[in-house]
Amino acid sequence: MADAAVVLVSGGLDSATALAWAVDRGFGCHALSLRYGQRHEVELEAAARVVADQESRRGVRIPHEVLQLDLGRLGGSSLTTGGPVPHHDDVEQVLAAAAESVPSTYVPARNTVFLSLALAWAEVLGAADIVVGVNAVDYSGYPDCRPEYLRAFEALANLATRAATQDGVRTSVHAPLVDLTKAEIITLGVSLDVDFSLTSSCYDPDPTGAACGGCDSCLLRAAGFREAGVDDPTRYAVRPPMSTGW
Amino acid sequence: MADAAVVLVSGGLDSATALAWAVDRGFGCHALSLRYGQRHEVELEAAARVVADQESRRGVRIPHEVLQLDLGRLGGSSLTTGGPVPHHDDVEQVLAAAAESVPSTYVPARNTVFLSLALAWAEVLGAADIVVGVNAVDYSGYPDCRPEYLRAFEALANLATRAATQDGVRTSVHAPLVDLTKAEIITLGVSLDVDFSLTSSCYDPDPTGAACGGCDSCLLRAAGFREAGVDDPTRYAVRPPMSTGW
Repeated sequence: MADAAVVLVSGGLDSATALAWAVDRGFGCHALSLRYGQRHEVELEAAARVVADQESRRGVRIPHEVLQLDLGRLGGSSLTTGGPVPHHDDVEQVLAAAAESVPSTYVPARNTVFLSLALAWAEVLGAADIVVGVNAVDYSGYPDCRPEYLRAFEALANLATRAATQDGVRTSVHAPLVDLTKAEIITLGVSLDVDFSLTSSCYDPDPTGAACGGCDSCLLRAAGFREAGVDDPTRYAVRPPMSTGW
Repeated sequence: MADAAVVLVSGGLDSATALAWAVDRGFGCHALSLRYGQRHEVELEAAARVVADQESRRGVRIPHEVLQLDLGRLGGSSLTTGGPVPHHDDVEQVLAAAAESVPSTYVPARNTVFLSLALAWAEVLGAADIVVGVNAVDYSGYPDCRPEYLRAFEALANLATRAATQDGVRTSVHAPLVDLTKAEIITLGVSLDVDFSLTSSCYDPDPTGAACGGCDSCLLRAAGFREAGVDDPTRYAVRPPMSTGW
């Protein structure tokens, strides 16, 4: 039987690629999504599409759990409190702002919360593997996307659970995209037959789910497609400006 | 202004004492409770009573947040899945069983999830301190109650957040009860004027909230009162058997 793994699936481009990677590696994948009060809750529909697409494409069964937890009650992020999310003119501006300070779209301790829940489910499943699509290259503004953070979570996991302390299970956190640029992630996704038209990255989508084309996430995504030389299948309300590159 | 701290308050004897300790230490306390699908959800009423009692007794304001997260969906614990919780004849049996294997009342990765949420709120509040009433002496069956686990969480926290990486905040996890026996916790609580009649420890309360007197938590609590020489104010459906001691 395939080794079970819990894969965090947000519905974005990165987690779709991470899921495809995990399926390709032969893990028996269990997809975990969180309804945490994100303004772009439409991404959860994308998460369901991405999981269903992997199931039909690869002929595997991927149980998908969507947990509900209103992090917006705690505040602290423009992604959950209804405040405006930053918009920039181009991707250079996005990167310059992120180099200055962690963006307002940062959700306090989000990946720690998500990984904790993945660890909980992994323990119940008897799974030693957690897969997460975090990425530290193009957008280093989020502290909980860095390799040293992920190693610290592994160390914690291996002290935290009955599985670790009683049954000797060693938890591994796989972050196959952590060292890739957005363009490299897209290239990897293409090689794994990921259908990016199913994914949703926008922080500020319109009511129909169309991407705004101007938030940090849209600009980074669009620049990634350009750099990878891959047609951008995103349905935009307003197309992102063409950048001269990175 | 007092240093802000997030205190995890379940409504049990330990967390009530930890909260009183934190108030006594002068922290500006923020109480965090979780409705996680626990069968003994009545403990949340106790949590509210304990917080209100500290407020009126000490003349402080303690914001209290109750987050909802259904860990029962993931299964893996008799505390959340409706399965029977263990009952024993006396506290010696409880300790012997816990020495054999982690009890079925263990909730996978619960403290990791709870501490992650405390970290999230602490970051929003600008708080560097988290207080948790875990205890590793009498009941070492839970892996996520041990000092080495708590140190690993601190290490993670100090890599995880914007507060840590951008603003230089060093998170401390205080576990003032971690090295105390249940009797010592009760003695500490008495010295801090904790009203234990407000607390609820039972894993298997009846519909009125009366304690069952036979679950592990009831037996440990009752033995603690006996050993401390303190009258047990718990309202029992069935009084726990008198043990000859530890």
